[in-house]
Amino acid sequence: MSSREACVAADQTDPLRPFRDLFDLPPGVIYLDGNSLGALPKAAVERAASVVTVEWGRDLIGSWNTHDWFALPTRIGDKIAQLIGGTPGSCVATDTTSINVFKALAAALGIQREDAPARRVIVSEQENFPSDLYIIEGIIGMLGHPDGRPYELRLIDDEHPLADALDDDVAVVLLTGVNYRTGAWWDMDATTAEIHAAGALAVWDLCHSIGAVPVDVTAADADFAVGCTYKYLNGGPGSPAFVWVSPKHAARAKQPLSGWWGHARPFEMAVGYDPAPGAASFLVGTQPIVSLATMEVGIDIALSADGQQLRSKSLALTDLFIELVETRLAGHPLTLITPRAHADRGSHVSFLHPEGYAVMQALIARGVIGDYREPHVLRFGITPLYLGFADVWDAVESLRTVLDEELWRAPEFQVRGAVT
Amino acid sequence: MSSREACVAADQTDPLRPFRDLFDLPPGVIYLDGNSLGALPKAAVERAASVVTVEWGRDLIGSWNTHDWFALPTRIGDKIAQLIGGTPGSCVATDTTSINVFKALAAALGIQREDAPARRVIVSEQENFPSDLYIIEGIIGMLGHPDGRPYELRLIDDEHPLADALDDDVAVVLLTGVNYRTGAWWDMDATTAEIHAAGALAVWDLCHSIGAVPVDVTAADADFAVGCTYKYLNGGPGSPAFVWVSPKHAARAKQPLSGWWGHARPFEMAVGYDPAPGAASFLVGTQPIVSLATMEVGIDIALSADGQQLRSKSLALTDLFIELVETRLAGHPLTLITPRAHADRGSHVSFLHPEGYAVMQALIARGVIGDYREPHVLRFGITPLYLGFADVWDAVESLRTVLDEELWRAPEFQVRGAVT
Repeated sequence: MSSREACVAADQTDPLRPFRDLFDLPPGVIYLDGNSLGALPKAAVERAASVVTVEWGRDLIGSWNTHDWFALPTRIGDKIAQLIGGTPGSCVATDTTSINVFKALAAALGIQREDAPARRVIVSEQENFPSDLYIIEGIIGMLGHPDGRPYELRLIDDEHPLADALDDDVAVVLLTGVNYRTGAWWDMDATTAEIHAAGALAVWDLCHSIGAVPVDVTAADADFAVGCTYKYLNGGPGSPAFVWVSPKHAARAKQPLSGWWGHARPFEMAVGYDPAPGAASFLVGTQPIVSLATMEVGIDIALSADGQQLRSKSLALTDLFIELVETRLAGHPLTLITPRAHADRGSHVSFLHPEGYAVMQALIARGVIGDYREPHVLRFGITPLYLGFADVWDAVESLRTVLDEELWRAPEFQVRGAVT
Repeated sequence: MSSREACVAADQTDPLRPFRDLFDLPPGVIYLDGNSLGALPKAAVERAASVVTVEWGRDLIGSWNTHDWFALPTRIGDKIAQLIGGTPGSCVATDTTSINVFKALAAALGIQREDAPARRVIVSEQENFPSDLYIIEGIIGMLGHPDGRPYELRLIDDEHPLADALDDDVAVVLLTGVNYRTGAWWDMDATTAEIHAAGALAVWDLCHSIGAVPVDVTAADADFAVGCTYKYLNGGPGSPAFVWVSPKHAARAKQPLSGWWGHARPFEMAVGYDPAPGAASFLVGTQPIVSLATMEVGIDIALSADGQQLRSKSLALTDLFIELVETRLAGHPLTLITPRAHADRGSHVSFLHPEGYAVMQALIARGVIGDYREPHVLRFGITPLYLGFADVWDAVESLRTVLDEELWRAPEFQVRGAVT
């Protein structure tokens, strides 16, 4: 699109346009950080208030039954399962992504200890979200040297591709569907098949995938998956994460955080642990109900949107963003690090700029909120539920002003905060 | 006190009486389940609404800095540390109690692996809250047989006291300060000393202790402590738990859930894990901010109350409850299982009754909300912040009516729900 008018026209025929009205976005802001913290669904305000005043305040302890608090992790988990092609009972909403990575990895390693005890390598990506790598370190440290041999982490990168890393030592591969920095998207089907062909199990981190790109864990024949709900699912800050367990592993998947919520009969208060069937055994302790109940609003919105329409619009918007930056800001040192091929791209777009930090601060000061990631990365989340074509046009124009007028040179934009 | 009038008079001179007005209790209800889910502080309504509409909705991703979301787990953790006699930096508010038990146990076992590798026994209580025991099972299963020898769980009970269980094989002892069923309270100072004298480390579960009985982890020289915030701290349903790490272990305490929030510099996005100092390394992933921020209201209230006054009133109320049940309901088959000695009693009172389940349902139907625990246990939480002497009188009178008139025989009270 070569004009703002064309963008406005595209918005008018956008079948997803009505979804924008479900969100409460501040006036004067173009929000391109929905891949970090999704926007507030209007209905979440009333839901949170009701959980606090009616469910907690008025109905008190009885709410565990009357407001179904006990079932929230499995009921919402079933909804998340729908979003990723899973079956009922295969997914629970609980805890944090990192904790769920721990559970999934521990369970996958446990299965491999029975099936292929010689396999002691965990493969992941150098460019993975670091917490996933830290959790692998933690598991390896805790497992020590069973039978005398330690577990090892083997990292892949552009020069050491997955195919080279897969051998008879590999137990589990942990990959992130859409890379948090570049927006590069793994082919989940082909990659899982490649991992299985090498005798390993596949654990997928779907944090930047769910709600952003089509995911079908069943079609991909994945083994485990985890992800968060506060990005494209708009669940609220730090809303509980999810973990999906392939039904083929349900009977054997054991995770060591064996708390009472994962017990088959938690209220018998029995001394011995007897895991609930399937993904329910991946629950541990009492969940933060206010956050958990509130997040269901965002998940319901995602469920009501057409996945094909979301993907088409996401690609159209990210295409437009790239095209406008590369044509209208051609004189500036911006380097695209997001894949151009549709099959390789998630729903955010990242450019390197030598002064990336200051540029992003200047852009945010003008009401265009993206974020900055080390090193030099300007990251723009393109959420098809509440962004339009004119938003993309306006955001790029603001970026053009920041660069053309060198607004980023202002001293206040050089000061580093904890995070942008 | 031998009359309702005497109770009303005692309420009028109760120095803690003003705290009742800080809570929103439904009319017609006497709430004796604050040891399971604390009541709603009035200010929590506004706090939750503000987090959702202003912090999430209006300020969006910027709230991590402008509303200090990043610091919430450590800032609130410092407040919790004050409540249990800990120092700043020794405690974080995060995750669930069961997950924090896992971290604390794993860290304690790690220290012992260095200091006393032959010690492979974890001691706990047969009557402990079952989830603590399940987590021990999970850790033992994950650790396997390092150096050929497995870890073992050794349970103590009335016939197998702690003194008998402590020997040169014991690495760690996990005890719960106040028992969830009976209300029995361990002498934390003497018991920790006994555990240390045997060469073991002490991990304390303070779920039914914090806000209910005086706790001083420093005076007790405890090694680790965990607990929840949704009982006597009134943090809201499932509000995040806490974990305290003795400063003497801060440099060596390593827990395997090594997520990015526990990293010394999380936003460098480095590939290798480098733990933050002290308790901050017990953080894992992004916390449920709506629940976490809301819970601070209850913690602030607890901080503003005088601990000595709380304990005095708690004992006066539980004494009264026991006295009234035993005098005015003498003809009924009620057996006290809570210790009579003040030094051994927490802040809830439990009686066995052969028809306990139905009795509790009938009592709840009359607006007196306690709870039932298997087997046969009527449990009454006595929260000195918002209960008065007349409440205790009225609650016992309601129980008398239920028993005298055999109201519990009604068919609707025989049907078992998930939990009362």
